[in-house]
Amino acid sequence: MSRIGIFDSGVGGLTVQRAVLDALPAADTLYLGDTARVPYGTKSAETVTQYSLRNARFLARHGIDLLVVACNTASAVALPALRAELAVPVLGVVEPGARVAARTSRSGRVGVIGTHGTVASGAYQAAIRRERADARVIARACPLFVPLAEEGWTDPADEVVRGVVARYLAPVREEGVDTLVLGCTHYPLLAAAIADAVPGVTLVDSAAAVAAEVRERFGGGGARDGEHRFFVTDAPERFLAIAGRFLGRPVTAAEHVDV
Amino acid sequence: MSRIGIFDSGVGGLTVQRAVLDALPAADTLYLGDTARVPYGTKSAETVTQYSLRNARFLARHGIDLLVVACNTASAVALPALRAELAVPVLGVVEPGARVAARTSRSGRVGVIGTHGTVASGAYQAAIRRERADARVIARACPLFVPLAEEGWTDPADEVVRGVVARYLAPVREEGVDTLVLGCTHYPLLAAAIADAVPGVTLVDSAAAVAAEVRERFGGGGARDGEHRFFVTDAPERFLAIAGRFLGRPVTAAEHVDV
Repeated sequence: MSRIGIFDSGVGGLTVQRAVLDALPAADTLYLGDTARVPYGTKSAETVTQYSLRNARFLARHGIDLLVVACNTASAVALPALRAELAVPVLGVVEPGARVAARTSRSGRVGVIGTHGTVASGAYQAAIRRERADARVIARACPLFVPLAEEGWTDPADEVVRGVVARYLAPVREEGVDTLVLGCTHYPLLAAAIADAVPGVTLVDSAAAVAAEVRERFGGGGARDGEHRFFVTDAPERFLAIAGRFLGRPVTAAEHVDV
Repeated sequence: MSRIGIFDSGVGGLTVQRAVLDALPAADTLYLGDTARVPYGTKSAETVTQYSLRNARFLARHGIDLLVVACNTASAVALPALRAELAVPVLGVVEPGARVAARTSRSGRVGVIGTHGTVASGAYQAAIRRERADARVIARACPLFVPLAEEGWTDPADEVVRGVVARYLAPVREEGVDTLVLGCTHYPLLAAAIADAVPGVTLVDSAAAVAAEVRERFGGGGARDGEHRFFVTDAPERFLAIAGRFLGRPVTAAEHVDV
């Protein structure tokens, strides 16, 4: 079976790992959360690319058959640099998410929500229009969604959650989108509240989209359960405290490494 | 006149610089925002100390008479390491804020709000009890306050702002504190909303407290206007976009440096 390297700026990429494990339970994975430098979403493309290269080199040294860039911001800005340097295939979350969104939308009006970095990069906008030239893409950064998800404030009945989600999504809704891409790894935890704020709109989870592409590439892989190692660049305590909520299964150990 | 070095994890320390400039308009300042690694508040003490040392070395190389650690998290965990290494005096924001709070409180019940890192360090709690052994300190991390301040969502009449602030402060209020320390550089921007959520409670701004100590040390310094340089470790665009709101005066240029 294959060994898949996954990196993210922090804990959020575990929603991508979760989708990958749901699709390929037999895969071995190495997960690196760059928790000493999290978040990437507010940082420049140059800085994010530099950090992404360090993460990728670390995982490559451990031997991987495929690199999944779970972080939307890194996927949006660092793929060319990563593909130029790495000997293994590199999959980001932006292109798979954009492809599913372009196919899902009937009207061609597609919303994308993510970090400042992801939205400013224009990567989703460009990738959706590559798939579908008539698409109109409405992109919006939602900086409060990450701390909401990390606080565990995700209940769609919670008035703070409802208020924040409505504030960000009202302008997107007014644009009449029929499809909305969750372009940040934290956002699937808020999917129920987001769905309530944009009734009738289909949500596209980039994590599920990239997992489907990984499965296409490697097949299901048999009946064994894969082995999983977790690495973080800051002390593991805080990562371990919230990792289970993101991965959907317990994470009991993570190794502190310097990349 | 003296040259004061100030560093913070990002833009928030400009509220400290603002207080310093209000107290000593003639001082020259060098401000370093470690925007490539922001935030510090979710990171471990070891990582924050390492970043703080790099920031301090950078400022020391430019020649400073005093270092102000504007970041509460760095002040809470990195002062001993900074003082051991630097040849100039090092002032953090925690001790001055704690001193003012201990003197201000009549009941001895003092609230402290800040980042996860600041609260977990116990630095404010210990510093307040050093000043006043009978103090009971109630500390709470408020992770959504930073993105609220950066979004400019600070209006106390805004129902999202009111909801988030009430959520964090209700338990602090129930403890019957009469004094509340704003233990994060971003929080002064939310002071009006915080004051509404804890009526009758005196707010202590650590920025003003450290500025008063700087002034004690150096005096007013005469009538000239100081010269100010700004450095950031990530691309300056996002810093420049919001810096003016934090400093209370225009910031037109910042130099991108690697520390």
